[in-house]
This record gives sequence, structure tokens and C-alpha cells, in this order.
Amino acid sequence: MSHQGCVVWLTGLPGSGKTTIARALEAELRTEGVPVEVLDGDEIRAALSPELGFSPADRELHNRRVIFLAKLLSRNGVVAIVSLISPYRAVRDAAREELGRFVEVWVKCSIEECIRRDPKGHYRRALSGQNAQMTGVQAPYEPPERAELVADTEQWSVERCVAEICGVVAASGYLPPRGLAPRGLAQ
Amino acid sequence: MSHQGCVVWLTGLPGSGKTTIARALEAELRTEGVPVEVLDGDEIRAALSPELGFSPADRELHNRRVIFLAKLLSRNGVVAIVSLISPYRAVRDAAREELGRFVEVWVKCSIEECIRRDPKGHYRRALSGQNAQMTGVQAPYEPPERAELVADTEQWSVERCVAEICGVVAASGYLPPRGLAPRGLAQ
Repeated sequence: MSHQGCVVWLTGLPGSGKTTIARALEAELRTEGVPVEVLDGDEIRAALSPELGFSPADRELHNRRVIFLAKLLSRNGVVAIVSLISPYRAVRDAAREELGRFVEVWVKCSIEECIRRDPKGHYRRALSGQNAQMTGVQAPYEPPERAELVADTEQWSVERCVAEICGVVAASGYLPPRGLAPRGLAQ
Repeated sequence: MSHQGCVVWLTGLPGSGKTTIARALEAELRTEGVPVEVLDGDEIRAALSPELGFSPADRELHNRRVIFLAKLLSRNGVVAIVSLISPYRAVRDAAREELGRFVEVWVKCSIEECIRRDPKGHYRRALSGQNAQMTGVQAPYEPPERAELVADTEQWSVERCVAEICGVVAASGYLPPRGLAPRGLAQ
């Protein structure tokens, strides 16, 4: 298997659009025949880390588990799309260091807009005092300083985010050049 | 990627030879160009589950994490070689159910011989009272009833174990037929 994998690491506030972009990117790459797996923070928490909470130590352990999974997959030729708040810069930098073939995407959205969207009701609960460790409310989010791409979901459509990510991943040498074999065009 | 993965699940007492067989099988498959990954119970414990002990509940959670990893890898075309005591029949049966493409290998060795080998000193510590949850001493090991192969490491060499496993995996349709393209023979 000559295909080499990589990790596309989507970081951002809850409600910024990470999961939506991850699933759309997964669908696009699958259509192109690229082996791909989404590592969604919430799903992996439920499957692997039901005992963990949201303290800094627990978040770090959870994120380290995700890094471990991403490493196993990417070194076996899979594009591992990580969708994870990953609020701490140090953890993201450790992921970059350990994973090597790494593309960090800051899924950027203002806290006001995230609160307006609130797809899972987490902000509502946090703002009414039922969750005291919510990223963006009580817990910090450290904005990326080294991201290969900033995907501003208040400005860009999901389609544009996916296309921009594919472009960066290809430019990094982890996907074939884009547009050489356009699908859907008659030859 | 047309290649389909599978899981080779090595179960047996501590000291029965699981890790040795796993590494030899990995080397053989890698030589053949098959994507392969060893999921070693001890290593995964250290990486993912440093907080877990050896109570029945902790063992089960650890084993479930290994199943999750094996699933991610095998559905992406990798032969995942699991090397795990996995003493409980119910957990192994759950793994078989969830993983689908599954070959259970009982790495069989008498407790007397395992105690004699004792590569990590676990038996010595358990027998001197420093470890009260040792499989085969205080904790149960439930012998497989559905294993696709019994590899008796008191009778078979490592080479023979690897060859027999490859045969069973191929016969299950998860590897190409053996011996059709012998390596090292002039054409």
C-alpha cells in the first residue's frame, strides 16, 4: 500500500462547525476513493472514555487517546479527520509533533454565533449554571497560532471549507494534486 | 482500496507466547506487503488506560478499548493482530460479534510451563503475594470454545504457529491463498 495517511485536525469552539465539516470532508474523500475515518471527540468520549469529565487533566487524557487512534490510522494509510475541541495549544502542538503528517484547521466562529447556533444545548446549560466547565464560557479556548488553515464558518460555506481543506492537504503532499481528473466531466 | 482487513485475536495466559507470535506474524505479513498492526494489551494499557487495574470491570473496559481500536483498523484494510490475555469468554464473543472478520487463536500453554517461562516476572510476584489479581493464579482464564485455531506453544515452534495462523486467515478469505506466489523462487 503506497498510499500514505495523514491527520486533519479540526479544532474550535463547541458549535463552530467541526462535526459538520468533518462529515462533509469524509464524504468528499470517500467519493474520491481515499480511505478516511472521522475521529469525533464526542463519539470517542462515549466509546473509550465514559469515565472522563471536563477538567483540564481529563481533557488532556481524552485528547491523548484521540492522538493515539489518529496515529494508528494515519500510519496505515488512512486520512484521519479529528473533530475535537482540543482547547489547549500545548496538546495540539504535541499532536503535531507526534503525528508528523499533520494539518491543523482552526474552525473559527465567534462565541456569540456559537451560542446562537448551540446545536447540542451545551451553551444554554452552561449559561444557566448546569455545566461549569464549558469551553468558551468558563473554560479557556486557546486560539491556534500555527494552523495551516483558518476556516471561518461565519464567512465560508461548508462546501468552501471542504474545498479549502482538500487544497491544503494536497499542497502538503498528502493527497494527489486537485483538479487533474475532474469527476463528472466528459472526456 | 480493495484490500479488506480482519482481526487476528490471540488469547491466552500470561507467558503463553502471545506477544512473540504477534510480532513474528506481523513481520511475516509485512514481508508479504499486507498492512498490519499489533495491538498489544500491555502497550495499549500503558498508552490508553494507565488508570485501569485488573479487576473484572477494569479488564472489561480495557478489552473494550482494544476492540474499538481493532474495529477502526480492520475496517480500513489493516490486519489487526490483537495480543491480549482476554480471559473472559463473554468479552471475546462480544469482540467476534462486533468485529465480524475475526479469527480467534487460543495460544495454549499449561500454567506450569507459563510459570516456568515467566518472561515478565508476573507469576513470581503473584505467587509471593505481591499481585493478587493474576490470571491463572488468583483470577480465572476461561478457555476458548470457539477458537478457529489452537496454537499449542509447548508443541509448536513460533514459525509453525505463524504458518498455521496464516493458513487459517487465508482459508477464512481474509488473505490471498497461500503458496501461489512463493517468494525467493526463480521464475
